[in-house]
Amino acid sequence: MPRAAAKKDFPTAEIRRFLEPGPIVLVSSALNGATNIMTMGWHMMMEFEPALVGCIIAPASHSHDMIRKSRECVINLPTADMAATVVRVGNSTGTEVDKFAAFGLTAAPAEKVSAPLIAECHANLECRLVDASQVRKYALFIFEVVKAHARPRPKYPATIHYTGEGVFMISGGHKSFRRQFRPGNL
Amino acid sequence: MPRAAAKKDFPTAEIRRFLEPGPIVLVSSALNGATNIMTMGWHMMMEFEPALVGCIIAPASHSHDMIRKSRECVINLPTADMAATVVRVGNSTGTEVDKFAAFGLTAAPAEKVSAPLIAECHANLECRLVDASQVRKYALFIFEVVKAHARPRPKYPATIHYTGEGVFMISGGHKSFRRQFRPGNL
Repeated sequence: MPRAAAKKDFPTAEIRRFLEPGPIVLVSSALNGATNIMTMGWHMMMEFEPALVGCIIAPASHSHDMIRKSRECVINLPTADMAATVVRVGNSTGTEVDKFAAFGLTAAPAEKVSAPLIAECHANLECRLVDASQVRKYALFIFEVVKAHARPRPKYPATIHYTGEGVFMISGGHKSFRRQFRPGNL
Repeated sequence: MPRAAAKKDFPTAEIRRFLEPGPIVLVSSALNGATNIMTMGWHMMMEFEPALVGCIIAPASHSHDMIRKSRECVINLPTADMAATVVRVGNSTGTEVDKFAAFGLTAAPAEKVSAPLIAECHANLECRLVDASQVRKYALFIFEVVKAHARPRPKYPATIHYTGEGVFMISGGHKSFRRQFRPGNL
């Protein structure tokens, strides 16, 4: 793990900074003493406060069952230097391998959920499943982020965005249009 | 408008290429002869085929009513050179201005919906509202993309990703990990 700033509490009402630009994330879960990790690209912000996030988690995945039963998970934000690990996590199934051990990832205790944080990730969002009504029809899980942790710097880490066909877009530069925005509209 | 490749039909089952990396999009709608445009950052892929997209459209917005009533819209993908226009669209309301005229955007006829395409955008996804059951609770619209158009090149246009506070991330380079992916897992 590269030397990095220690994580701090991060306001759950501001997690759009990490999720809205559409990065691939790693979702960690726990059930009956076992843990698992999956890659996830289909997610979106649904509300600022309470901080709601909608996620599609395929029924065929081991994580689907673990999260449906435990009603908890952690959404972890990997950085571009972790791209090869992200691919390995997506290539394997938790029914066959312990992904933390197999891919050299560190499980750290969360504060409000039993699922582990992935220490190597830039940010960790502890989630509770608050609405499972659309799980059967769409595999749509609606989570509330109940606690967030993030490294205070860099403010905008290099993130990984999937485009299909094995190709990732890596986040580029950031440009402020703040002065052009109507103040109430940021 | 810069010189650009003419658009072609694009397979709806492959629209993840445009939406999954999380770009800001422009949503165009039509009702009773009037049109409107809004910016949208809260959206996600929900299914490949039929191509389903979930979107959060705030109840306070003029587009919310127009799309709920017309049950149609077009999701348009703006490129980085359009960032200032995207901000202007987000700053204004369709109850006060004709956004196509005010911001120099060209409305082109869609094939399967009455909402117009925004000609200047790289891709246009014609959408029908197929599930409004979560609109009241979450402002969540579930659309099916019934027709897609895209410029054949560049394959990966520079896109704009919102991070809050007036700051956009502009998409960076693309890197293929195709050889590392398990074939069934792309």
